[in-house]
Amino acid sequence: MPSASARAEAADAAARRRREDLENTRGTRLTAIGRHTMTLERARCENLIGTVQVPVGVVGPLPLHGQYVRDEEVFVPLATTEGALVASVARGCRALRESGGATVAAEDIGITRAPVLVTSGIEQSRRVISWVEDHESDLRSAARKVSDRLDLVEVRSQPVGRSVYLRFRFTTGDAMGMNLATVASEQLVHKLIEPATGARCVALSGNYCTDKKPSAVNLLEGRGKRVFAEVELGETALSEVLKTDADQLCEVQYRKNLLGSAMAGAQGGFNAHYANMTAAFFLATGQDVAQVAEACQGVTCLEHRGSGVYASVYLPDVPLATAGGGTVLDTQREALTLLGIVPDAAPPAGEGALRLAEILAGVVLAGELSLLAALASGALAAAHERLGRPVLPTRR
Amino acid sequence: MPSASARAEAADAAARRRREDLENTRGTRLTAIGRHTMTLERARCENLIGTVQVPVGVVGPLPLHGQYVRDEEVFVPLATTEGALVASVARGCRALRESGGATVAAEDIGITRAPVLVTSGIEQSRRVISWVEDHESDLRSAARKVSDRLDLVEVRSQPVGRSVYLRFRFTTGDAMGMNLATVASEQLVHKLIEPATGARCVALSGNYCTDKKPSAVNLLEGRGKRVFAEVELGETALSEVLKTDADQLCEVQYRKNLLGSAMAGAQGGFNAHYANMTAAFFLATGQDVAQVAEACQGVTCLEHRGSGVYASVYLPDVPLATAGGGTVLDTQREALTLLGIVPDAAPPAGEGALRLAEILAGVVLAGELSLLAALASGALAAAHERLGRPVLPTRR
Amino acid sequence: MPSASARAEAADAAARRRREDLENTRGTRLTAIGRHTMTLERARCENLIGTVQVPVGVVGPLPLHGQYVRDEEVFVPLATTEGALVASVARGCRALRESGGATVAAEDIGITRAPVLVTSGIEQSRRVISWVEDHESDLRSAARKVSDRLDLVEVRSQPVGRSVYLRFRFTTGDAMGMNLATVASEQLVHKLIEPATGARCVALSGNYCTDKKPSAVNLLEGRGKRVFAEVELGETALSEVLKTDADQLCEVQYRKNLLGSAMAGAQGGFNAHYANMTAAFFLATGQDVAQVAEACQGVTCLEHRGSGVYASVYLPDVPLATAGGGTVLDTQREALTLLGIVPDAAPPAGEGALRLAEILAGVVLAGELSLLAALASGALAAAHERLGRPVLPTRR
Amino acid sequence: MPSASARAEAADAAARRRREDLENTRGTRLTAIGRHTMTLERARCENLIGTVQVPVGVVGPLPLHGQYVRDEEVFVPLATTEGALVASVARGCRALRESGGATVAAEDIGITRAPVLVTSGIEQSRRVISWVEDHESDLRSAARKVSDRLDLVEVRSQPVGRSVYLRFRFTTGDAMGMNLATVASEQLVHKLIEPATGARCVALSGNYCTDKKPSAVNLLEGRGKRVFAEVELGETALSEVLKTDADQLCEVQYRKNLLGSAMAGAQGGFNAHYANMTAAFFLATGQDVAQVAEACQGVTCLEHRGSGVYASVYLPDVPLATAGGGTVLDTQREALTLLGIVPDAAPPAGEGALRLAEILAGVVLAGELSLLAALASGALAAAHERLGRPVLPTRR
Repeated sequence: MPSASARAEAADAAARRRREDLENTRGTRLTAIGRHTMTLERARCENLIGTVQVPVGVVGPLPLHGQYVRDEEVFVPLATTEGALVASVARGCRALRESGGATVAAEDIGITRAPVLVTSGIEQSRRVISWVEDHESDLRSAARKVSDRLDLVEVRSQPVGRSVYLRFRFTTGDAMGMNLATVASEQLVHKLIEPATGARCVALSGNYCTDKKPSAVNLLEGRGKRVFAEVELGETALSEVLKTDADQLCEVQYRKNLLGSAMAGAQGGFNAHYANMTAAFFLATGQDVAQVAEACQGVTCLEHRGSGVYASVYLPDVPLATAGGGTVLDTQREALTLLGIVPDAAPPAGEGALRLAEILAGVVLAGELSLLAALASGALAAAHERLGRPVLPTRR
Repeated sequence: MPSASARAEAADAAARRRREDLENTRGTRLTAIGRHTMTLERARCENLIGTVQVPVGVVGPLPLHGQYVRDEEVFVPLATTEGALVASVARGCRALRESGGATVAAEDIGITRAPVLVTSGIEQSRRVISWVEDHESDLRSAARKVSDRLDLVEVRSQPVGRSVYLRFRFTTGDAMGMNLATVASEQLVHKLIEPATGARCVALSGNYCTDKKPSAVNLLEGRGKRVFAEVELGETALSEVLKTDADQLCEVQYRKNLLGSAMAGAQGGFNAHYANMTAAFFLATGQDVAQVAEACQGVTCLEHRGSGVYASVYLPDVPLATAGGGTVLDTQREALTLLGIVPDAAPPAGEGALRLAEILAGVVLAGELSLLAALASGALAAAHERLGRPVLPTRR
Repeated sequence: MPSASARAEAADAAARRRREDLENTRGTRLTAIGRHTMTLERARCENLIGTVQVPVGVVGPLPLHGQYVRDEEVFVPLATTEGALVASVARGCRALRESGGATVAAEDIGITRAPVLVTSGIEQSRRVISWVEDHESDLRSAARKVSDRLDLVEVRSQPVGRSVYLRFRFTTGDAMGMNLATVASEQLVHKLIEPATGARCVALSGNYCTDKKPSAVNLLEGRGKRVFAEVELGETALSEVLKTDADQLCEVQYRKNLLGSAMAGAQGGFNAHYANMTAAFFLATGQDVAQVAEACQGVTCLEHRGSGVYASVYLPDVPLATAGGGTVLDTQREALTLLGIVPDAAPPAGEGALRLAEILAGVVLAGELSLLAALASGALAAAHERLGRPVLPTRR
Repeated sequence: MPSASARAEAADAAARRRREDLENTRGTRLTAIGRHTMTLERARCENLIGTVQVPVGVVGPLPLHGQYVRDEEVFVPLATTEGALVASVARGCRALRESGGATVAAEDIGITRAPVLVTSGIEQSRRVISWVEDHESDLRSAARKVSDRLDLVEVRSQPVGRSVYLRFRFTTGDAMGMNLATVASEQLVHKLIEPATGARCVALSGNYCTDKKPSAVNLLEGRGKRVFAEVELGETALSEVLKTDADQLCEVQYRKNLLGSAMAGAQGGFNAHYANMTAAFFLATGQDVAQVAEACQGVTCLEHRGSGVYASVYLPDVPLATAGGGTVLDTQREALTLLGIVPDAAPPAGEGALRLAEILAGVVLAGELSLLAALASGALAAAHERLGRPVLPTRR
């Protein structure tokens, strides 16, 4: 086996060759993509030609009160190309600071994978489901053999016609777990369930998981981490930081996040822009950004409380990791370290990812409040004009 | 005004100072984030501390037959940290090549922004809507004054109770257009609609837009670009490249993408993993990755046709740009150039973004087919095991 | 052709024979079902054996201010077997009376039918859609030939893969119009669209209509009549009639109709119980009760206004008729007459059904307010206990 | 207490007086409504003025193979005013007969009621949920005291912001159970949960139940009875009875029930017309027709199997009763008796309602197949023209 540095060089050289081939055949330059300072060897990406670089801004200090972030102030890196986003989240952090910080909470729901099996109909489907119910401990043991961090915590069965969906839910420590869950699901289905029941697995993923798509089953049952954040905004935070007042802010919440989403036929999207904060946080910390498709779901609440405002965010479906995937890359790993997460020294298992989840909850709350306040005070277009710098010429 | 290089140096220096502050106060290193080779000055991101680098792989040649990509073979850069994704999409490209390439199409639906106004009730709401209908040409002219590339193509009005949602739909040339649309909406509402009707705007965005959240209104009306791709897979593509056959592949489509999504309460998500390809493509080409929240929606079709398979993808809601936002950054700009898009020389307006949309459609089709085939042939877990490299130790 | 009375006798005799057969073979009595006093001859129902009788209660006077019910007080018959419902709606009517009556409005969206055609793919689908757009006036004329009350007002085209959905929207005067629309759709598709485009119709209804199922397309585009009602409840109405106050009532609205429905993954169902009023009204007036499946959709608003409460209901999808279907039966026709609708003398066309729609809007508002108030004041269980009379013995 | 006949007379007299008042003040006749032959005394309806009569047709014999209908042939009464419906379902029954009958199954999920409580935020919400989890057996006992047929089988808790939804699920024997569940929920909340946790109940129903509205929580968790039916249609049934073939029928299923519903943004409505059969069956047998709003949800499957077709229906949310509500009325009770259900002698509890559920499943399958076949063979418009008899004059 070659040494680490030899492998790194080989990876870089292969990428360079691919770039040169493309440059020659396509008549284009790939200089910037090739000017990566990251070692490509650890990258989970085939046919590598280099990297794209995405700007990272920082927000904070953000005081959080949770179980895994206990009364700490954190600084949070966000990677984005959307002008005004980091500035806006930073303002939200100031509002939270002014209000004593945010209370946050995170639960480890676990990652899910739902194979679909085909049966002869009602009767065999029922037998499959019964068999699975009767053998949950066997399934649990088999999953544990795939990895000792893999815990099968639930099987949710859904029959329809000749199809049976088995939504396996696993906790996977600090890994996001999708790969592990897929490998384990294959073992459970092929080695145990098919032989015992005679049902045939059509696909290891039957979309009842649901991975990387918004769905009601994820909204109701949760997936990955389920996170909460809340704050009670005082008058100063409202008027001095957010430049609005309780009435205006609550009216935006009502007509936009509740009524507007209802009228738009939103599914789960009863919020202003969770996708912005989750995408920027995912990108900075090495998460799978395709999962923004599910992490964008959730429900914001704002309510008058005394002369202030109670505000909360709720995200039921946030897959997160502090190990594996993009978290092993050096820029992303630094972002995790800045958040107080030391990837390789994370005892006990799972607490790193839960810490990350609590921080995300706080950041989403900060960003949500700032945008709602900007809408309430009529500042949105101005911010876009100043920081977003529309690129098209105008004739004004 | 300082020179360009002076501004670039100032931006880099400011980022360095922020890093040093964080390193000192947090006791952590930000070396890798700081080792960016991109000029930060063009970054739309506040409180900059550097960049994250995301690995880029390339797939192709992918032969496409569209209106903006006319019988060309393209090589497509994808930025991702998910192992096996690029390899899988590359396999899909081979299947498309073997089948003569994919037919693609893209329509410019336009970007939307929907302010919410409050009225005294049914009667005033009706007057607001009538006024808007009667003055569409005035609104169109006013929008044009904000930018000569901004074309107001529709206003969709939705009243409920005392609220009226006005979903303005604009085409914006090669810009994604969200900022421009926001600025224009403010003008239309504050300068024309409020004074004329007496209704009061509560928020410039009333979630009926719908930006960065899945919603039925986007699914049905479209947003950004609406894209299509299709292919007729022959037997060789099925057996030699995709390692499956027509029956297996169509059964996975049926039990997963159609029935499975129906059972999961998916909204618009009748596909296997559009989010993966859109996220990796968005990231490589400087799009706003938060919009994966909407771009992940869409419907895949697979049908027996003769001894082969007809396959198609449909994405109704893909915001895209070849100008502005992240497309101005040098690594992302190179990715666009590799796709044959020359950002600053894009006459006529809009064709660059439509070319990008057609290419995306082809890539999504390639990736979709490859994953469905992997599921059909039982290869998914094996690929994950080999390329995804689960990081947790096992006791097997 | 036999005389009317001869036909009536024949229908009754046939029903009697069927009853006798069943009584003989099944050993059961059908005396009550056979004791109908309605003439069966006009019934749109095959294999008749008699009738079921459903109790009818009346609510009112209900003062309404609309376009088709101009400052009138109406008494509204409701057919139901749910204890407490009529009493509750009656209380809502009192609250509306106390507040000066409800403002109501109705629009004739029209009934829809959406055939699905199959094409060879993207290119042919595009041609089909273009052909339909280019020939809307021909299609309109052809529809008019089916009936001079049939007006084709829109065709909404939706392609996906090899399928094209054409949602024809027709106004049909005072008929609900589903049958007429189906007959006309067949003519349009078989005589015009198929021959001209070469596309093949797979089914005259492709579920994109959408008939008798809740769907986003109906919610957003409307179907049948789109109705609105609103009121400003004063303090007396709140405290004396509804036994609650503005704060309590608005909190129930918020936590139940908005937040609760969002959390439940309701689609369009942001209300407390529209289905109750629409079902009872449909049944009394001879509508198709299966369409409660769509008419149950809609959004209630309640907002503080001064010391009172602004309240509104919105139902986008209410198919209604004052001619045809069950409206020709004598008990149902009497119910319509009580509402001031004279079925056979309804000039100009469509106004009878719109009057019915406005009345329904008022009744739904009354019922909605009463239930929300009962929940707010904690009276729901008591009402159920008193009027619903649970039938099971208790051991308390 | 007056005798039964005296009470009956009093009820009839009161209705007569109301009719006379209306006739006098509104100048209209209520003769037909007043010509009821049903005793009004048992009616759960206030402000009675009489009854509407709805035509009842019968379909059958329908051979069913279930747990509560064991290899029996049933004749099923359907009440409807939609021409062609009963004829169509009758044809479906012939197709099932020709294929050896349908396999049916029903599960007693139970009725649900979900109060919403308000807390101070995350921390108190968590305590409420923990308390409920820790005291499920106390809650179960308390529910049992309300009625010995009331079994609390699950509490599903959902927190968001300051709100907690507690979805109580009860089995209630042969009663539909909504009233009982409401009364019990009040006891549980007011006597146990509020005092113990300090949380305040805002509304006994928080729409997370979900009653009489389509919702994802009902679709995924079920409500009332969950029913299944399936059949394997042979070639003769397809060609001789349904006048179609396997290919045509499966293509309609695919392009209409699956793809069409997906494109329409249907929630749970992946079927052709469950609402028709459930409404007609509910009406005939004394169910609450407003619950068609939820019972219309469900998923049909059709698949090629050998030279025939496997067909199934699945309805997850069907509230049903053989006791209480409209089932006590004499016409409705006769309909139940015809189905082999003897209301007052129904030991063991719950089996009557489950028998009813299995029969409904069979009827829905029959009706679904017949309509799909009519669409496949192009017979739909013809049937509507012949049996639906559009009432408007034509100028053809």
